[in-house]
Amino acid sequence: MRVTFDPGGLADRIAGGEPLALARGISHVENESDGFEALLERLDGRAGRARRIGITGPPGAGKSTLTAALTRHYLDQSLKVGIVAVDPTSPFTGGALLGDRIRMGELSTEPGVFIRSMASRGSLGGLATATREAADLMDAAGYDRVILETLGVGQAELDIAVSADTTAVVLVPESGDGVQAMKAGLMEVADLFVINKSDRPGADRLEKEIAIIMSIRFANREPAGGGGGAEEVWRMPITQTVASESRGVDEFAAHLDRHFDWLTATGRLEARRRAARLRRAHDALVRRCHRDARRIWRDASPETLDSGASPYAIARRLYEASRRPRTGTLRGT
Amino acid sequence: MRVTFDPGGLADRIAGGEPLALARGISHVENESDGFEALLERLDGRAGRARRIGITGPPGAGKSTLTAALTRHYLDQSLKVGIVAVDPTSPFTGGALLGDRIRMGELSTEPGVFIRSMASRGSLGGLATATREAADLMDAAGYDRVILETLGVGQAELDIAVSADTTAVVLVPESGDGVQAMKAGLMEVADLFVINKSDRPGADRLEKEIAIIMSIRFANREPAGGGGGAEEVWRMPITQTVASESRGVDEFAAHLDRHFDWLTATGRLEARRRAARLRRAHDALVRRCHRDARRIWRDASPETLDSGASPYAIARRLYEASRRPRTGTLRGT
Repeated sequence: MRVTFDPGGLADRIAGGEPLALARGISHVENESDGFEALLERLDGRAGRARRIGITGPPGAGKSTLTAALTRHYLDQSLKVGIVAVDPTSPFTGGALLGDRIRMGELSTEPGVFIRSMASRGSLGGLATATREAADLMDAAGYDRVILETLGVGQAELDIAVSADTTAVVLVPESGDGVQAMKAGLMEVADLFVINKSDRPGADRLEKEIAIIMSIRFANREPAGGGGGAEEVWRMPITQTVASESRGVDEFAAHLDRHFDWLTATGRLEARRRAARLRRAHDALVRRCHRDARRIWRDASPETLDSGASPYAIARRLYEASRRPRTGTLRGT
Repeated sequence: MRVTFDPGGLADRIAGGEPLALARGISHVENESDGFEALLERLDGRAGRARRIGITGPPGAGKSTLTAALTRHYLDQSLKVGIVAVDPTSPFTGGALLGDRIRMGELSTEPGVFIRSMASRGSLGGLATATREAADLMDAAGYDRVILETLGVGQAELDIAVSADTTAVVLVPESGDGVQAMKAGLMEVADLFVINKSDRPGADRLEKEIAIIMSIRFANREPAGGGGGAEEVWRMPITQTVASESRGVDEFAAHLDRHFDWLTATGRLEARRRAARLRRAHDALVRRCHRDARRIWRDASPETLDSGASPYAIARRLYEASRRPRTGTLRGT
């Protein structure tokens, strides 16, 4: 099952903007094909131009419709857009009503748009890492905006959302979604809020609710800088949209730009990206150790696995055998 | 930050049914305190009596109200109940409206009930593992039923749900939850369905919807056994409940019993549990390798981290240095 490829050649083609090469590169990263880290390393110096936008929220909030509308907005400005979708209910990843799927289909044939869905099953704890690296490749391939669409529930999913420069949390007016979302940890990751489907009753109430919760939560937060004044504090905007009719989307995009400018002006962008690089090194290290575990498990003898020992004793034996200098004892007794 | 404890002594106290010892044991597992695997190993032979029930579903489906009602049902039968809650919106774990919290509070003072919430943040990819082990400890402590309440979204969360003997998926009538849930992968993990808040409009429609989807999906599935006949096939029941009034809960519990009997009669319980033991060994191995990554990262020198090399080069250097025989080179140049 080993896939071999030429990391240098593929890196050049990705950097040259070939969509097919990009698609292949992301697959190699997802599958951890031999050489995938060399590919990432080669393209490392080429990334950093794209602005990364996380769009997250509960199922049914209309995240992908908003993603599509925002993408149209950027296309109108002649910007290239990469989309990484991790939400299992997203039409980008597969779970969609027919109408949604048709709308997304139109978008996917658009030049200047690259859509990639990531399987949330099967990756050995590495979903957030692989997703971020897919965004890295799109960045290196020259996409100006990379949108990460993730479901705002679950740890791995929230990890992805916070890896963006700016994270937008999308909610809908009905059924106490506001409070539910607050509880699900969405509050902590939000740089701005969108109330989508705001033509339904309850949008204004939800907006007030969010504003109140945010003001309580951040009341005691000191401005980060010294004499920087008002611009040191980010006042979290709440935008009402009807994404299916593109209503409010220009305003949403303007807030995204404002946030990016604020990040840049306050030095936070640089700090965030420096921290992100360290985080990448950390994750790459974890992945290497994970690979050890996979290799050890794959090489384990049936005798050890069926020995009747406790699971913890089995794990310990396998692990300790793998640490000893290789003398072929692992497969022996 | 190293916590030391006597695994043997604590194991005896847990097996003796001391709630405080159980609480401490779970904390040691969560924190991976020195000796936590010895504790698990000691108690390994004592587990296996409890029936494990996974209750999962989207936010707002009333999973914890159903968990509470089911717990009452078991208490009436003089059964001891352990609850592991991983849902961030659950009143057991913290996110709750006042009324919910009071109801849960009553339950938590009940003798014969042990409630533990697991933090879904912070665990280095080990949430599913630690949660399953918390259930192991409750099992060893003599709880007859262990209920795992998890949010039915996100990979780690679904992993927890499927670790139970029987997994119940809870939905509510409104807002197309049925279809949304199908898309979120809940279909694959369900052994039975509950339509909670079934006094609201749409419960019968949703029940039909689920029945149709299930019949299509499983139409081509062959009975697993040879001449076993009808009992070889599990016909997935759908129960309508109003958990807040305990309506339908006896029926739900009866279906859970039926499923457990079916698992036992068909030999699936034994097979599942054997597979679960292998899975435990695998997860324990992964956790050991994870710990390697944490240790390597903790010991990394600032020079290496700030070297300006790409994240992948940094990870490679750290990893390779850790594989060399220890000569103090890691902290040196």
